[in-house]
Amino acid sequence: MHIEIKRYSGIPLAKQVVQTITDRIESGLLKEGDKLPSVRQLASTLQVSQVTVSKAYSQLEQRGFIECVQGRGSFVYREKSANSLNQEKINSSTAWQLETIDYLSRAQMWRQYHAGIMNGTYTFDSAIVHKKLLPSEEISKEFIRELQQAPDMLVNYAPAQGDLQFRTALAKSFKEQDPNITCDDILVINGAQQGIDLVARTFIGPGDIVYLEAPTYTGAIDIFLSRGAKVLSVPADEEGMRVDILTKMSDKFPPKLIYTNPTFHNPTGNVMSTRRRIELLELAESYHSLILEDDPFRDIYFAQSPPPTIKSLDEHGSVIYIKSFSKMLSPSFRLAALSASGTLLPRLIAAKTISDLGSSLLPQKAILAYMVSGRLNKHLKKLNHTLQARRDTALELLQQYAPAEISWTKPQGGLSIWITFPVWVNTNDLLLEAQKQQITFLPGSITYAVQPEYHHLRLSFSNIEEQDLRKGIIILCQIMKQFLAQKKTAVNCKMKCNT
Amino acid sequence: MHIEIKRYSGIPLAKQVVQTITDRIESGLLKEGDKLPSVRQLASTLQVSQVTVSKAYSQLEQRGFIECVQGRGSFVYREKSANSLNQEKINSSTAWQLETIDYLSRAQMWRQYHAGIMNGTYTFDSAIVHKKLLPSEEISKEFIRELQQAPDMLVNYAPAQGDLQFRTALAKSFKEQDPNITCDDILVINGAQQGIDLVARTFIGPGDIVYLEAPTYTGAIDIFLSRGAKVLSVPADEEGMRVDILTKMSDKFPPKLIYTNPTFHNPTGNVMSTRRRIELLELAESYHSLILEDDPFRDIYFAQSPPPTIKSLDEHGSVIYIKSFSKMLSPSFRLAALSASGTLLPRLIAAKTISDLGSSLLPQKAILAYMVSGRLNKHLKKLNHTLQARRDTALELLQQYAPAEISWTKPQGGLSIWITFPVWVNTNDLLLEAQKQQITFLPGSITYAVQPEYHHLRLSFSNIEEQDLRKGIIILCQIMKQFLAQKKTAVNCKMKCNT
Repeated sequence: MHIEIKRYSGIPLAKQVVQTITDRIESGLLKEGDKLPSVRQLASTLQVSQVTVSKAYSQLEQRGFIECVQGRGSFVYREKSANSLNQEKINSSTAWQLETIDYLSRAQMWRQYHAGIMNGTYTFDSAIVHKKLLPSEEISKEFIRELQQAPDMLVNYAPAQGDLQFRTALAKSFKEQDPNITCDDILVINGAQQGIDLVARTFIGPGDIVYLEAPTYTGAIDIFLSRGAKVLSVPADEEGMRVDILTKMSDKFPPKLIYTNPTFHNPTGNVMSTRRRIELLELAESYHSLILEDDPFRDIYFAQSPPPTIKSLDEHGSVIYIKSFSKMLSPSFRLAALSASGTLLPRLIAAKTISDLGSSLLPQKAILAYMVSGRLNKHLKKLNHTLQARRDTALELLQQYAPAEISWTKPQGGLSIWITFPVWVNTNDLLLEAQKQQITFLPGSITYAVQPEYHHLRLSFSNIEEQDLRKGIIILCQIMKQFLAQKKTAVNCKMKCNT
Repeated sequence: MHIEIKRYSGIPLAKQVVQTITDRIESGLLKEGDKLPSVRQLASTLQVSQVTVSKAYSQLEQRGFIECVQGRGSFVYREKSANSLNQEKINSSTAWQLETIDYLSRAQMWRQYHAGIMNGTYTFDSAIVHKKLLPSEEISKEFIRELQQAPDMLVNYAPAQGDLQFRTALAKSFKEQDPNITCDDILVINGAQQGIDLVARTFIGPGDIVYLEAPTYTGAIDIFLSRGAKVLSVPADEEGMRVDILTKMSDKFPPKLIYTNPTFHNPTGNVMSTRRRIELLELAESYHSLILEDDPFRDIYFAQSPPPTIKSLDEHGSVIYIKSFSKMLSPSFRLAALSASGTLLPRLIAAKTISDLGSSLLPQKAILAYMVSGRLNKHLKKLNHTLQARRDTALELLQQYAPAEISWTKPQGGLSIWITFPVWVNTNDLLLEAQKQQITFLPGSITYAVQPEYHHLRLSFSNIEEQDLRKGIIILCQIMKQFLAQKKTAVNCKMKCNT
C-alpha cells in the first residue's frame, strides 16, 4: 500500500493516513477482512512516527472502518458471516500483497463507478446521454452495411495514430474550427480520459505545475495526481476560469500545463468567454505553457453555438485539443480525437504506442460509417432539441419545488445543472439520503483537486428515463427540504445547548 | 526534450546524448529542420558540462544527423527543397515546444511502426497472423447476427472491468488452466501492451527493480523504462529464463517484478520448462515479488500442448497473467484479458479506470459472439496446421539456402524463428540491404533491455502471403550470404592493412 504523504500541505499526517485508508476501503481497493500493515511497518514505510499511525488506526477503528485485534493485527472491518472462513483462507495466502507498494494516488472515478453510485431509478449522477436517445439502430445499420461489404475491416491492421479514413473524416469535421487541419494532425484515442492521461504521462512529471479549474472533471484530477504533479486550483465564474487570478499565481508558480474544459464546463455548465480564451492563450504563450482543452460538450448546445475553440485561436502551438464521442454518442465506444501541432503530436503518438499500440479498429469503423452517412449531424440536432426540453423541465421543477436556500446554474449546453447549498451542507450526506429513495447525483466534493467544497452537487438530466425525470426531481426537492430542515434543527439545538 | 542521463551506467555522457537525439530523429520525434536546444541550454538542463554537449553535437553533425549554423544554432539536418520555406515558417512558431520537457524514455515500438520497417513485399518483421489466415467472414457473420438482434449493444454502458458476458466467456476458456477462476478475477484490457503498461504504472516506480529476459519483447522494455525502473536482464536458454542466474542477481537486487514470456517466447520461440516455472515461483514467493506472465502464443503450437501456465501453479498470488487475442485473431481488436488474485486486481482495475475508463464494448462483443459460436477452437486448429506447414517450409529453406555461418531455433509454437549470426555481424546493417529488395525482419538489437546484441534477427513466418514465403526466404538467404562475404572481405582487408 502506497500512501503519499504531503508534508507541507497543512493537513495533519494522521488525517492523511485516515483519508487514504478510508478512500481505499470505500472504493474496494481494501476488502473486508484484509490485514493492514502493522503500526511499526507503516510508520517505517511512510517515515512518520508510530504515534501518528497509531492515532490514525484508532480513528479508523472508532469510525468502524477497521478492527484491531490484540496480538493479531488490524483488519478491514467485516460483518461476520458463513463465507468468512473461506475468505480468511484466501486472504491469508495473499496477505503479503498488501505490502506491495503501488503508485495509485487516488482513483475517485473508479470509486464512483465501482461503489455503484450509478445505480438507482433516478440516475442524475452521470453526464452521459441515455441510450434511448442514442441512434443505435442507425449506427448498427450503417455499420452492418460496411461489414457485409468488407468483412476484412475486422482484421485489418490499424496504425497506432488511428485509422486513416477515420482521421480523414475527423479532420473534415474539425475544419470549421481549424481550417488547416489534416488527418496527420490527429491522434485517435480511447475517450477523452486516455487523451488526458497521454498528455500527463508525456509532459507531466513529479513537481510539474498543473492548473485546474475549481471545480473540474474528477477523472482529470486522478490523472494529474497519479503523475505526482503539483496541482493548483484556479477559481472560475460565469465567464470561466479566472485568468486574472491564474496570472497572479503564475508569477510564483509558472504553469507547465493548464487543463481547461471551457465550453459547457463540467460540472458547472459555464462557458469561457472569448476574451478569457484569448487572455489564457497569451498567458500560456508568455510562459511557454501547454493548454489542454477538453471539449466533449461543444456540440450539445441549446441557444447560439459556443465561442471558437481555444485551439482555433492559437497561433503558437500551445493548445492540445481533445474532442470525445462519448457525450454525443455513447461512452461505450471509448473514442475521442486529439489534435496538436509541432513536435507535441509525435511525442503523444509515441506515448499512445507505449500505452496500447493504438485504438481498436472496430469502433473507429462504426463511427466512421455513421459520420459518412451524414446522419450524425441530424442526430445532434434532434438530440439537442430533446435535451433542451429536458433542461427546461428540470429548471422549471427546481424553480417550483426546490428549497429557497439553494441556487443553480442555467446551462446553455451540456448535460448538467450545478446546484449550490448553504456552506454548512455536505452533499455526501445528502446523497446517502437520496440513495434510500433510488436517487443518485454527483456530490460536488470529488470535483475539487485541492480544497474540496462540500455544498454543491451536479445534477445531470440526460441519463434518465423521460418519465422519471419529473418524478425524480420532485422527490429530490422533497429530500433536500427535509435534509435542510433537519440540519437547521441540529444547528439550532447545538447553538441552544452551547448557550 | 527530456534526456535521461544515467550517470552510473558506465556509458559516457556524450554518448548518451548522441544516442537519445539519434533515436528521436530516426523515430521522427525530431523532424527535419527542427531546432535543437543551444549547447548552454541543454548543458544546464541536463546538469552536465558544456564540453559534453558540444562533443555530442559534433558527433551528431559528423554523422549527418544535425547541422550547426554559426550564429543561428543547431538543426536537424534536412534536404533543401521547395517545401522547406513553408516548413520553416511552421517550425519557427512552434520551436519553443522543443524546450518542453517530456518523460518519454524511449519508444522503440513506435519507431518500428513509424519508420515503416513493416512495409515491403516480404514482411518477416511482425509476429502477427496474415489477414488471409484470419476468419474475418465468420467473425463478421456472428457479429452481424448479434447486432441485428440487439443493436442496443452498440450504446450499452460497459463497466471499466470489461463486459460481464465477455468476462464470463473468458473465465470459462481459462478454466482448463485455472479451475477456480471466475469473471470477477478478470480485467479486459486493450491488448497485452496495455496490460503490461497497467501493471507498470500501478506497481513500478523510479528505482524499482524489474527483471526481463534477454532478449525480450521490445514493447515491454519501452514501458518499464518509461516508469524509471531499474531494468535488469536475465539470460535465457532453451529451457527459458535462467532462474539460477536470476537467484544470484536477486541477492543483491531483490526483484519487485519479473516479466516473462515463458511459452513460445518472443523473440526466440523457446518454452520455459515446468521445472523452471516452479523455481521461478519459489523465488518470487521468497522475495514477495510479482511475476508478470505474458502469454500471447500459448494456443499456437505444433506438437504437444505447452506446459501449464505459471499462474496455474501459483498458490501465493504472485502471478499476474495476460492473454491476448492479437495473435490468434487480429491485433486490430486490441483485446486481451488480465487475471490476478487478492488485492492486486482491484488496484489494476483502478489504474485501468484512470487510463481510459474501460475498453471499448464493440470488439468485446465481436469476439464474444465468435467465442460463443464455438468457431474459435476450430479456427485455432486450422490455423496451427497452416502455421506448422509454414514453419516447416521456412526451416527447410533455411537448411537448404542459408549461409553456413548462421544458426536458428526450431520453434514448436508461436510465429517466429530466431536467427543468430557471428558476433561481428550487425543485423541493422543487414536490414538496410534487405529492405532494398523489399524484405523486412526484426533486428535483434531492439529486443535487449540492457546490453544489446546485434547479431540476431527475428524472422516471422506468419504475416506474409503464402506464395511470397518461399521466394522471400530464398532471397533473404542470398542477401545474407552476400552480406557475410562482404563483411569477411572487409575484415580480412583490415587485418592485412594492419599487418
